[in-house]
Amino acid sequence: MGTLKGNLIFGQSGGPTSVINASAAGVFLEALQHGDVIGKVYGAAHGIKGILAENFYDMAREDPAELELLKTTPSSALGSCRYKLKSADVDDTDYRRLLEVFRKYDIRYFLYNGGNDSMDTCNKISKYMQQVGYECRIMGVPKTIDNDLFGTDHCPGFGSAAKYIATSTMEVFLDARVYDTGMVTILEVMGRNAGWLTAATAIAAYKGHGPDLIYLPEIDFDLDRFMADVRAVYEREKKCIVAISEGLKTADGRYIPELVGEVSRDAFGHAQMGGAGAILANHVKETLGCKVRAIEFSLLQRCAAHCGSQTDVDEAVLAGRTAVLAALAGTTDRMVGFRRQEGTEYRCDVDLLPLTVVANAEKKIPREWINAEGNFVTDDYIRYALPLIQGESSPPMEEGVPRFARLRKVSAAR
Amino acid sequence: MGTLKGNLIFGQSGGPTSVINASAAGVFLEALQHGDVIGKVYGAAHGIKGILAENFYDMAREDPAELELLKTTPSSALGSCRYKLKSADVDDTDYRRLLEVFRKYDIRYFLYNGGNDSMDTCNKISKYMQQVGYECRIMGVPKTIDNDLFGTDHCPGFGSAAKYIATSTMEVFLDARVYDTGMVTILEVMGRNAGWLTAATAIAAYKGHGPDLIYLPEIDFDLDRFMADVRAVYEREKKCIVAISEGLKTADGRYIPELVGEVSRDAFGHAQMGGAGAILANHVKETLGCKVRAIEFSLLQRCAAHCGSQTDVDEAVLAGRTAVLAALAGTTDRMVGFRRQEGTEYRCDVDLLPLTVVANAEKKIPREWINAEGNFVTDDYIRYALPLIQGESSPPMEEGVPRFARLRKVSAAR
Repeated sequence: MGTLKGNLIFGQSGGPTSVINASAAGVFLEALQHGDVIGKVYGAAHGIKGILAENFYDMAREDPAELELLKTTPSSALGSCRYKLKSADVDDTDYRRLLEVFRKYDIRYFLYNGGNDSMDTCNKISKYMQQVGYECRIMGVPKTIDNDLFGTDHCPGFGSAAKYIATSTMEVFLDARVYDTGMVTILEVMGRNAGWLTAATAIAAYKGHGPDLIYLPEIDFDLDRFMADVRAVYEREKKCIVAISEGLKTADGRYIPELVGEVSRDAFGHAQMGGAGAILANHVKETLGCKVRAIEFSLLQRCAAHCGSQTDVDEAVLAGRTAVLAALAGTTDRMVGFRRQEGTEYRCDVDLLPLTVVANAEKKIPREWINAEGNFVTDDYIRYALPLIQGESSPPMEEGVPRFARLRKVSAAR
Repeated sequence: MGTLKGNLIFGQSGGPTSVINASAAGVFLEALQHGDVIGKVYGAAHGIKGILAENFYDMAREDPAELELLKTTPSSALGSCRYKLKSADVDDTDYRRLLEVFRKYDIRYFLYNGGNDSMDTCNKISKYMQQVGYECRIMGVPKTIDNDLFGTDHCPGFGSAAKYIATSTMEVFLDARVYDTGMVTILEVMGRNAGWLTAATAIAAYKGHGPDLIYLPEIDFDLDRFMADVRAVYEREKKCIVAISEGLKTADGRYIPELVGEVSRDAFGHAQMGGAGAILANHVKETLGCKVRAIEFSLLQRCAAHCGSQTDVDEAVLAGRTAVLAALAGTTDRMVGFRRQEGTEYRCDVDLLPLTVVANAEKKIPREWINAEGNFVTDDYIRYALPLIQGESSPPMEEGVPRFARLRKVSAAR
């Protein structure tokens, strides 16, 4: 494939992470260096919604120093969305509109940053553009704290969230043992149907300051077994720290909040998570009659750029840059992934995975990395996760607090 | 007063902070340098409870490098307590026991680290020892994230908690604006009956990434006015970030959780805080029908040593050292405090405040530092708080997570 001249658009989709903007920095800083091929570099406001609405920014108008600051600015600087594209067979309205916008702005490079659902969106658009014969190179840039993207060793966003969770768990561990009275502490961690993030609390345990029990969504949740486990630790030690995933489900498919009431769902039909810890805490309190505290890491775990993993940030930037360079070299219909090399020292190669393979598949923790009792992870997990949290990334500070990127967000001429 | 030879005991009391151990480091590292006067340096296990039970550690047996690490290790390394001493007039059992222990171990220096209640304990012991004529120099070392200790400009523990809260609020602000859909976010902050810590979210606003509304316990809480405020911001901007104190109370004296149910109380009769944010979030959700998320900083805000204020850590160490040096020089019955110097540049002198003055008085935010509407703070607060969060303190890292102090805790010979 030869040189394809035209413009580039990049969008951010799905829940934010500490490093989604680091990938944006990688995309923009790289793309802006190729003015001979890429004429305009656009950033879509709120992902695909911004493209449909012709609401996007001219990234050349940004101060390069602010684009550099994106590497340590959490959340989605362009704005994100949870917008589900219908199958083009069923309703191609959005697709025809996208094609219209792509043609109008001569978009020849479409890069989309997101997790499972966003890669599905990216895949559908890619296939549609192929089908209608519109020449456009389409690349997925991975991101999710959940680490559940299929085909890649791990995903940008996970390392920083895991580092924050491991660090905070160690700190809470110290706090929770301060009195000589009994106490059960329940830490609720995000991750939806995959336990990668909840398992990061095991890193704190590996360092001697972590939970006694870890419950992952990979294992059917059984309230009686949970209570028996907690009771045993509590009776032995008077303290019990439990890490639970927000996405715990009983064998008959009910999330913890569904055991006590209604659960609302988003545009993808996903249950709104959160609250499982408080519900279990209540149950433990009533059953054991001891002091119980539930701590939900909530949004903090996905935006704590002040406690980022440098490895994660570097890889997020690399993923963005690689997507641009691969597309320039002729690649399309792929997502950037990581393949870990064999050996004791951590090294990852980038991998270009077919979007079809990635879209909508979920990667979970292998059963053999979870102990037989289903209430902790094995050393395999530690060996896997530890390299991903190495190195400290934090924003430059100004007056004692982070100085985050401030984009001008100059709207592209219509 | 001349030289008083004997042994020293130091205890930690009340809720932990990020820097309570920094004060311990100050006390121990200083005291261990005065072997000519101070024979033994003891650390009490769980504060006054450990003294009553003769459960304390010989601090000379610790590795000095680990004592140094206490400066960046959160929580109470010796263990803390919430133990209320009765008035000696009513029941002097504990006092007689303390005297017995002091005599047995030749304790001539008693240093106690804590907040309001702990200074009350310290004061009572000081007065008792004076009354019975037991020569002992007694010093309070201040600590509380709540910053409500009377007589001192501010209190070690507050700066680091404020820095963490300001930083996390900025991060959450970015996260909470990521979608173009409406959302109300409620941040629940500790601080009991004083709003110092909740007001720290205003630092995030000062940097352009903070809450729209701040509700402090200094102002009677009115649910209707709160709802009107939130509705106005939400209807104008589709986003509303609200910071609330856990200790909000209605004019008739009820905490938010008391509006919907029972509240448990600790040994001091203090209500167990927490949960106000979730309750208000529910109410907002039902009233406005929009997406609402409550985030409770919970224990995280008082143990996040990974995001500490260097100013705070330095002052915490200084408070500990000063207590030792002042006692050696003959001072007793005082608490170390800070007096801010006039001028634009931040400088504080140490102050030695009578324990009687400090004990049990609460310092709140002056009314004139709160806006007329009672839903935000003025620039006076920013000028006050900003110097206290300057400089970054974090623990040394090991394998990507903090390396906290590990004490040997060798029991003192009985």
